[in-house]
Formats: sequence, C-alpha cells, structure tokens
Amino acid sequence: MPELYQELVKLSGSDMYPFHMPGHKRNLESTPMKGAFRCDITEIDDFDNLHDEEGIILEAEERANRLYGADKTYFLVNGSSCGVLAALSAAVPENGAVLAARGSHKSFYHAAYLRHLDIHYLPYKINEEYGIPESYRAEDVAAALEKEKVSAVFITSPTYEGKCSEVGAIAKLCHEKGIPLIVDEAHGAHFGFYQGDEDIKKNSQEEFASIPDSSVHQGADIVIHSVHKTLPSMTQTALIHVQGNLVDKALLKRFLRIYQSSSPSYVLMSSIDLAMKEIEQNGKDYFSKLLYFRNKIDKETSKTSYLKVVGRNDIEDAAKVLIFVKKHAMTGQALYDILRKEFRLQLEMAGEYYVLAIITGSDTEEGIDRLIAAVNEIDGRLSEAKEPQETDNLFVPTLPEKALSLCEAWDSSKERVRLRDCAGRISAEFINLYPPGIPIVAPGEVISQQIAEELNTFIKRHMNLQGVEALDDGENYVQVVAQNPLG
Amino acid sequence: MPELYQELVKLSGSDMYPFHMPGHKRNLESTPMKGAFRCDITEIDDFDNLHDEEGIILEAEERANRLYGADKTYFLVNGSSCGVLAALSAAVPENGAVLAARGSHKSFYHAAYLRHLDIHYLPYKINEEYGIPESYRAEDVAAALEKEKVSAVFITSPTYEGKCSEVGAIAKLCHEKGIPLIVDEAHGAHFGFYQGDEDIKKNSQEEFASIPDSSVHQGADIVIHSVHKTLPSMTQTALIHVQGNLVDKALLKRFLRIYQSSSPSYVLMSSIDLAMKEIEQNGKDYFSKLLYFRNKIDKETSKTSYLKVVGRNDIEDAAKVLIFVKKHAMTGQALYDILRKEFRLQLEMAGEYYVLAIITGSDTEEGIDRLIAAVNEIDGRLSEAKEPQETDNLFVPTLPEKALSLCEAWDSSKERVRLRDCAGRISAEFINLYPPGIPIVAPGEVISQQIAEELNTFIKRHMNLQGVEALDDGENYVQVVAQNPLG
Repeated sequence: MPELYQELVKLSGSDMYPFHMPGHKRNLESTPMKGAFRCDITEIDDFDNLHDEEGIILEAEERANRLYGADKTYFLVNGSSCGVLAALSAAVPENGAVLAARGSHKSFYHAAYLRHLDIHYLPYKINEEYGIPESYRAEDVAAALEKEKVSAVFITSPTYEGKCSEVGAIAKLCHEKGIPLIVDEAHGAHFGFYQGDEDIKKNSQEEFASIPDSSVHQGADIVIHSVHKTLPSMTQTALIHVQGNLVDKALLKRFLRIYQSSSPSYVLMSSIDLAMKEIEQNGKDYFSKLLYFRNKIDKETSKTSYLKVVGRNDIEDAAKVLIFVKKHAMTGQALYDILRKEFRLQLEMAGEYYVLAIITGSDTEEGIDRLIAAVNEIDGRLSEAKEPQETDNLFVPTLPEKALSLCEAWDSSKERVRLRDCAGRISAEFINLYPPGIPIVAPGEVISQQIAEELNTFIKRHMNLQGVEALDDGENYVQVVAQNPLG
Repeated sequence: MPELYQELVKLSGSDMYPFHMPGHKRNLESTPMKGAFRCDITEIDDFDNLHDEEGIILEAEERANRLYGADKTYFLVNGSSCGVLAALSAAVPENGAVLAARGSHKSFYHAAYLRHLDIHYLPYKINEEYGIPESYRAEDVAAALEKEKVSAVFITSPTYEGKCSEVGAIAKLCHEKGIPLIVDEAHGAHFGFYQGDEDIKKNSQEEFASIPDSSVHQGADIVIHSVHKTLPSMTQTALIHVQGNLVDKALLKRFLRIYQSSSPSYVLMSSIDLAMKEIEQNGKDYFSKLLYFRNKIDKETSKTSYLKVVGRNDIEDAAKVLIFVKKHAMTGQALYDILRKEFRLQLEMAGEYYVLAIITGSDTEEGIDRLIAAVNEIDGRLSEAKEPQETDNLFVPTLPEKALSLCEAWDSSKERVRLRDCAGRISAEFINLYPPGIPIVAPGEVISQQIAEELNTFIKRHMNLQGVEALDDGENYVQVVAQNPLG
C-alpha cells in the first residue's frame, strides 16, 4: 500500500516538473528545511484531497483508524483546536446546551461563542495538594446530568497535567441519556496502545507498567488527539475519531472542511502518517522506552526531600512528569528558571509550586539522565538552605455567577473599569492565569468582590494574569459589559 | 534583528534539551524532513506566541508588513481560508448582508453559513472567449450598491486565472458608503512589488514589464494573501493585512485566534518569514526571473495555431499562464493529460478548453523551456490533424433564484430526488464543477428546469460535477430541502 511520505519522496525524485502551487516549486536548496520543501505539494493528480479523500489520504486515515479502532478517523492540519470546534458544531445544535468542565481548552469556549451555546459547568475540582485540575468521576457527571438538559457532554481527559477521568462510565451515562460524549484527548494520542502487553510489562515491572486506555476504546463518541504532543509528529497535527450513531458524521465532515484550510499541508499530513507508521512498526519499542524513562526518573529521584516527582497514584499518564515543590520551598517559576538557565533543560510549563516535563519514546537517555541529575542537585541545595520560603495557600477558584451568555457578553458594548471598582460588574472578557489558561472569569460572568480581591493578589504576586491591563496611571483595568448599552 | 528561522536553527544546534511538546523531540534522523523536524517547536521561552505576539513573531509580522504597507499584518497558518472566515466574521455582523462575486472561494460561503449572512451577488460575468470568470469594474459594484444595503463588499482579485478587478475605484466606492472592502488576493501575494522599477523593466521590455499593484496599496480594508501560491513559502501559509478604521481590529484578532490552532507550526511560520526575507533581499531577482520566464513563454509560443498563451490584455498576472485551445480543437483535460503523461509537466488545472500553469521566480529555465517545447510540439500535432474536434458552446451560468438563506437550507431536513425530477425544488447542497468549484447552485437556491438540464449535460460530458450523486439504479440524485420539514 502506498504511503503518503514515500510517494512524496518518490515524486520529488522524479522528472515531473511542477507548474502548480506552491510557488517555491520544491526548489529551495539553501535551507536545512529543504527536505520538507521537497515534500510540500498541493492537490495534484494521485495525491488525493483531504476534504474529499478517496485515495492515498483516505488510506493513511484508515491506517491511523486501525491503530485506534473508531468507526472513522480524520487527519487534522489545524490542530486539535479545529477538531474541538468541529465536534461541538456537529454534536450540539446552535443555541443548544452542553455540559463541560471549566478547565476546557480555549477552543471549547470559542465553539460555544461561535455557536451560541449555553454552557453548564461540571463542579470545579482542584487537587489541593498540587493545585492542578482534578479529573472527573462518573458520579460528578451523573449528578450534573440530573440537573441540566444538554445535547452533549465535553470532557478533557487526560488533563494537561496527565489526570484521567472515568471515560468508560461517563460514556455509558451519556448513552443512557441518548447524548454523545466528546473527549478532548489532545494530550493522550499515545493512550490505548499495548494494553497489558507482556513485552512492555517485562521492560517495566515498575510503577508505570502500561499506558492508560484510550477514550476510543472506552466508548466516547468523538475523540480528539493532538498527534504532535506525545507522538513523533509535527506541531499543529491532530486526529479526530468518531464512532456510533449519536453524531451526524456528514455534519462533522462539513465542519472539518469549514475550520481547515482548503490548501492543507502535505508536510503536516505526511508527518501524521510517518508517526502512525512509526507506532505501527516500532510502537512496542517507543512505548517501552517511554515507560523505561519514566520509571527511571521516578526511581532515581525517590530520595529527594523537597522536589517530588508525582507518581501514578495521582497522575496516571507516564508522559507527564510533574515535579512538585514540597513545603512550597520555591515557586514553580523559580524552579523552571533554574532548570532552563543553569541546567539547559526546557520544560513545558511552570505552575504555582510545580513544573511540568513531557517525556516520550523520542527522548534520549542522556536527556533523561540530565533531568534526574538536575532534580537531585536542586533538591540538595534546598535541603541545605536554612529556611524554606514562606508557604502561600494554593488558589482554589470558585465558579462565578452567570448573568449573560458568553456570546452576548463577548459581543456587547464594553467599558473599561478599574479593578478595584469592578466588583459586581459583568465581565466582557476572559480573565485567566497563563498557564494554564483556564478562565477565572468568562464573558457574561459576574466579578464578585472575592474574585476581584483574588485577581489583585495575583497581580501583587507578579503572576501572568491575562485579561487585566495595567495602564500608565498605575491602575489595573478590566473590560466589563457597558451599563448603558448605547454608551 | 533576530529572524525566526535563524533562531530555530540556533536552538536546534544548542545544548538546550526539550522536555516539552512536540513529542518527536526534534530527534527524527531517519527522514529527509529532519531539517523541518529540527525547527518544529512549541511556544517556549524566547519564541513568542502567534496569538499574543510581542517578540520574535511580532517582529516577523512587522517585517512582512513593511513589504506590503498595511496598518497591521498577521501570519496565518491555516491558509487564506481562515483569513476569509475571520475577515467576514469581523467586518459583517451576524445575520448581516454582504455583496460578493459568485465566484468566491468556498471559505466565503463557509463564513456566510457560520455567521448567517445574507449574500447579494455581483452580476455573473464570464469571459465568453475563454470561459473563465471576469474581473469586476467599479461600475458593477456601484450598481449593486445602489440596490442593496450591505455591511461589506467581498471580491476576489486576481481571480484564479489571473484577472484583476478595479480595486482602487471599488475601495473608494465602498468608503463613500462607509463600508469596508475585503479583497481575497490569495493568488496575488506577489502583487505590488517593484512597481515601475527601472531594473525590472530593463530585464523585461516585453509584454509583461511589471506585476499588478496590490490591493493593500489600492486601499482595500482587509487583504488576504496565500504566501504559498506565488511566493516561496510552504503550503497552508498566508497573510492577512488590515488598514483604516472601518474594521474592528480587535475583533479581527479575536476571530484569527478562533479559526487557527492554538499550537501553530513554527515550520509554517518560519517558512513565511523565509519567503519575506527572500523578497526583501532578493526580490528584484525573483520578480525579474518571473517576468523573464513569462515573456520568454509568450514570445517562443507566439507562432502557434491552436494553443494560445493568453496575453496581458486579457490576463494581467504574469504568473498565470493560461493556454487556451483555439477552435476547441481538444479539451483542456486532454491537453492537461498529454502534458502530464507524455511531457511530465504537472499543471495546476484543466478548464473546459484550457489549461493553467503557475510560474514564479522559483522556476528553472529548464522547466520553462520544457513547457515551451511541449506547447509547440502539441500545437504542431493539432495543425497536422485533419479535423479539429466539434466545437461545444462554453457554459455560461445563470444565477438561480433564491428561496431560502444558505444557512437555513444547508441546515434543513433534506431529501434525495432524481436529477430529472428536481426542477423547481430548493437545493440543500452546493452543486459545482470542480475545478473551479464555483457554485452552479448554492443551498437555498431553486434548481430551475434549465439548470437541471445543464447539470445533465455535464454528466453526459463526464465532467467532475460535485453535489450530484450517481446511485446503483443508474440514476443521478441531488439533495433538496424536504417538502415536509418533519419528514
């Protein structure tokens, strides 16, 4: 069976001359990216069309589908973002209602805005030890579904930090109500492979003996995977899987056409296909390495006093190495900066009192050893220091009261008010800490006195607060819905 | 000033180890695309964020902006498609009205669907000699603006085939009405450079002495450029320019965030920056070569009898080499196939009686000479043949009557009816020939008896008609709005 990437390489070595787009004519010799330029074509004969696939792209999608096992799998070249937009557009009618976790990706809020959706939130759950969003149990969703009538449920599993929800049981609940479950599994494209495989286990008779199961296997109706996050594919590549009869597949395809370029990149598409081929052919090795690296990190940092690599009981995904600072002896940002500047290790993000590293089967043992050495070295310094830094309480957000829909408020007339004067006003913008970017206040929600005070605390602590603007008068301002809509 | 691509190369050669996305860890040695993988990162420190740019990406956008001269220029990684969606979403209120040419790109129709827009069409204009869409004069737009109240005008200039509208005069008309002009200049990213430059002219004292001016210079409010089509950038890359006060720039930025991945590809972004740098540093050479190649093709094919390379009087863009078959001596598809199979020249598209080649400053003289030789050779064969093929009339479409809005009809209950029974019914789908993909009927429009007969003719001529389905019973079917909406 022809493979996309091999066919592109073959074309680039052939005598066929391009009198078509792209304008570089595969003729860029002066850049180290020339290999990619050589594979960069448009929809010419024999190379199919992502938006009406029936040849080589369809075959590549079917190859991916066989690995995950849904009814249908589509390649995405506009990231998981476009998959989330398309999933919600297809599964929930315009002006309909959806049940979702507050900690959803911003593309979820974008879909709600575009499609005028009414959002019902699952109760806030923050792990109070580490300050990260919790995953959801079936009982959380069952309780919410008793209260609200919605057309779909949208959850994120795993979370950015690697926590997994009870997808199988939640899917069952949804199906009992006759509604689809959409899982944003952007961070779990590597889930579901080699479940219980003996060779994998042999390589890792340790804490992390396997990878969590995928939401496709667990019965979710739509599952979105960022291929680039944890598998060897290029940034901006993703997959969307659909199964069952609760989602109109033709409508989903319509929205995938709408939210993606009509000139999709063959470099991105073939990089997805390369990643699928890698998993198909060398997956056992890839996942064995991931588990081996992960268990090595956990074992060789197990004697630390202050820096704690959070284990499988709290974070199920082996790829997410969350290094928590016990007793809040230093901030996450300080730890992140030391790792970067002194040890030359670029981590994924810094939280309030933790840092997050992502590891995959493409890492090298040298890199893993450098991380282990750095964690032990920094931990040693903290142990020698006389006084650990004063402990701040972790921020546990509350869900604000809703006064207007997201769409009404984001499209309303706005006015700028001082943060200290904003209590009781309706926000016209998102306000969030970045990372992680989860809204503290969404458009349409009331900024209570308590929330205004919390926002002020974040500013005093020099945290990256988006949606609050410091002006030259030394005051901080937020955008609220204008009191006089004509004003 | 640091450049995106150089900084990525520097990073890939440094000792910084990646514990972040993407999962391939820039560690793919086994592929010729490894140069691209090495430059493929996520939003780490010092590499800015496309959606809130303030560092190296902002600088790259400003570099592009200096070349085009708008108020503001943004990089797009989801093609011109996302630029069209964002432009219309920002410039026209939901449920508002827009004036547009029928021959607009499908992203225009997608935007109208998403935002519930009422579309008023500029009168159909087809060049009856070549069967290609005409460009628009100011008087066409003036007449339409007298009749209809709209929030914006949307035109495509140049057309796919390289015809340019009177953008400056049309912009003036729009501004007199206080509404913005959006120009889909996807095929004209190379426009506006070296206007009247003496060195350029010296190289080409021929028919094509310069490149048409850009819509940014001519005063359009939003202009969208596919950088990959005619400049040396990778497929799926584009620019959007905005100027003046008629478009809410903050709202445009909001929609650019919505319609693009939150994990934009640095490979795509740096390929835009590389193309801009190339034009900045070697633009004169790039455009001189384009004009030289173009004039060489025109001169060295000027003695043909049947294959006519259409000149500057009819098609202003030097990059679009439209080879028309006089006396309809063979179909465009037949010519396209011979060029491809026998001469190994892959053209951009085949029309009814023409083929279209795209040339740029990245072409090689060897390629250009092969095209010239092929045209002359095939022309000689046609001249020797006894009888040219029978002449068919070119298809000149009529604008169907509108019964429902695009959005109402596309979202309605549908039923499938036989093509021969569909006259008088309201279409629930797009029906078009591909290429060029311009709707013959859009959802909400009535399929008249005449249109039904035309569709039947296309099927008999084995043309690629999208939106009509041949089923096993030997009949062709179309989707129409159900007569009983509950049925």
